[in-house]
Amino acid sequence: MDHRSRQQRLQNSLSAHRLDALLVTHPPNIRYLCGFTGSAGVLILTGKRPVFFTDGRYTEQAQAEVQGVKIVIARKGALAAAAAWLSGNLKKGRRASLIGIGIEGEHLTVAARSRLAGALPSGLRLREMPALIEQARMVKDDEEIACLRSAVNLGSSLFDRALETIRPGVRETDVAAAMEYAARLAGAQGMSFDTIIASGARSALPHGRASQAVIPVEGFVVCDFGVILAGYCSDMTRTVYVGSLSAQARGVYQAVKQAQQAAVDAVRPGMKVSEVDQVARKSLQNSGLAKYFTHSTGHGVGLEIHEAPRLAAGQPQVLLPGMVITIEPGVYVPGKWGVRIEDMVVVTKQGCEVLTPTSKELVAI
Amino acid sequence: MDHRSRQQRLQNSLSAHRLDALLVTHPPNIRYLCGFTGSAGVLILTGKRPVFFTDGRYTEQAQAEVQGVKIVIARKGALAAAAAWLSGNLKKGRRASLIGIGIEGEHLTVAARSRLAGALPSGLRLREMPALIEQARMVKDDEEIACLRSAVNLGSSLFDRALETIRPGVRETDVAAAMEYAARLAGAQGMSFDTIIASGARSALPHGRASQAVIPVEGFVVCDFGVILAGYCSDMTRTVYVGSLSAQARGVYQAVKQAQQAAVDAVRPGMKVSEVDQVARKSLQNSGLAKYFTHSTGHGVGLEIHEAPRLAAGQPQVLLPGMVITIEPGVYVPGKWGVRIEDMVVVTKQGCEVLTPTSKELVAI
Repeated sequence: MDHRSRQQRLQNSLSAHRLDALLVTHPPNIRYLCGFTGSAGVLILTGKRPVFFTDGRYTEQAQAEVQGVKIVIARKGALAAAAAWLSGNLKKGRRASLIGIGIEGEHLTVAARSRLAGALPSGLRLREMPALIEQARMVKDDEEIACLRSAVNLGSSLFDRALETIRPGVRETDVAAAMEYAARLAGAQGMSFDTIIASGARSALPHGRASQAVIPVEGFVVCDFGVILAGYCSDMTRTVYVGSLSAQARGVYQAVKQAQQAAVDAVRPGMKVSEVDQVARKSLQNSGLAKYFTHSTGHGVGLEIHEAPRLAAGQPQVLLPGMVITIEPGVYVPGKWGVRIEDMVVVTKQGCEVLTPTSKELVAI
Repeated sequence: MDHRSRQQRLQNSLSAHRLDALLVTHPPNIRYLCGFTGSAGVLILTGKRPVFFTDGRYTEQAQAEVQGVKIVIARKGALAAAAAWLSGNLKKGRRASLIGIGIEGEHLTVAARSRLAGALPSGLRLREMPALIEQARMVKDDEEIACLRSAVNLGSSLFDRALETIRPGVRETDVAAAMEYAARLAGAQGMSFDTIIASGARSALPHGRASQAVIPVEGFVVCDFGVILAGYCSDMTRTVYVGSLSAQARGVYQAVKQAQQAAVDAVRPGMKVSEVDQVARKSLQNSGLAKYFTHSTGHGVGLEIHEAPRLAAGQPQVLLPGMVITIEPGVYVPGKWGVRIEDMVVVTKQGCEVLTPTSKELVAI
């Protein structure tokens, strides 16, 4: 990954935001900017060479991974060391005006901010910066898209394991176990979120993590899962039916499938994410099912399973080529059943490419 | 779990902290107080009946899980709904003085705090509260200790899978895969952290997550892993040796084993956690290895894998009966090898009980 360019683009934008330094504390943002994959560190960007602080547990790892950045192993915690560095280095050379240090307001805790502020001399001022790094991360470069494609393909291969395992009487967790084991053997570092296997009435739970419940003889089974491969996440959902399919069940499935396809077909650069959400919702309105669609239509995916943008009403973000997002409408009738279908797509110059290779035809087991 | 008592104890302590309400946003704290296991919600404690806010994705789940609390399904996000509730309910009945609302400073982000403050009328003041809930959670009740014991036993059973799988030429991830698969089949909802299988020179990485690296013909393999069972975490480390053991390798292992045992033997109520850390460090000093022990000696475990207290220098917390902590000294010689041994123990009235049933004798494979 071209970490140095990412650093430079951000460094170049500092003055436009009237910031003298950026304090990066969110691990995925640190990884994006300098390659460090550990869980504890602080990266400072200024006009000069960036500095990365971590602790003794990560000495070797930081040396192996971090690129384009000076590494400091902190004795008393990375944040305290970063504060000391800012105090010592930003005061010199500047006088009169306040020195602005951007912090990641959506990630830094209130308590960490207090400790940081307490360790800085007057004259240095912490300021919530806009989500500059998250904005940069929304648009993936070719290397990232290749990583995401690999993760999606690995993730997709797990659905075959689900189809082999899902049977009446089998526990939901046993299905998840088979899929997760296959993921590990195929090289995944882990799952990108708790695997959802939600059968029978549990399929009406949009976040029905695999439980000890046994798959009933009749009903939908929602399978929502993803892997992490080389740091990048995949995310997909397929819903299968166990038992003999009624016309009503088939109708619900087809309505969700149509809504999902309509939203995929709508995706193109320049479109607002809220409009994509609207397309899925409108399609379900035609079937009278819109009121059962109780979450947003999708989200960005990359180093994190949930990234910007969020495809929901009121979200102003415009789609750009290189964005990788999920399209995942669902219908949930409490106590009865639920259906969700989800693909990952990459926005292209003309429209989008569906990354998820798995068929969306209804499978009855 | 006795959620109502937990709520009441906290409600009773509000006035001592001059708070009119507590705003709980950290999911494990919410779970501890009312049983909700989802990832998005806000719990408000006042002198009256607590109120829990979540969104439409969790309607069914909240109704099934939440105890002793009024449930509100929020249309525009739980935090916004909580702010509106506070504005509408706390103003009534009180006048003159400021109304204090405690927030969890170690968890609430700077941005969430800003949004919350912006939604409250003047007269309502947000205040960082001490970690009251984390303090309460440090001491486990009998039901929690039973849960932790079950999680520890399940976790411990996975070490047999590791012993069966660890061979020269096998990838670290394949060992992790076998263990995680067994965990799932045995009923774990997942692993409590990314499984560490660190072989050869990688054993010198205290956080060497299982990688695609192949286990070499000679060297230590650090296995650090845990499960989540019924919400409670386990955590254990064993280090095995692959190949023919040198006297030096055996010496390092014995030194860590002695240090670990010395710290376990020292644990008793009334002792400071920093003293336990000191005991382990002193033992390693005798072997000249203390400088290679680069992390703290342990931490609390419960609903989260890392909880209070932290067993480290300078930490003032005193051990109390019912605390469940890890004891896990390690020695890491960069580029060469590493050894860590870790048990979970529960502090008893006289000393402690080691929960982890697995032998600590050196296994050579």
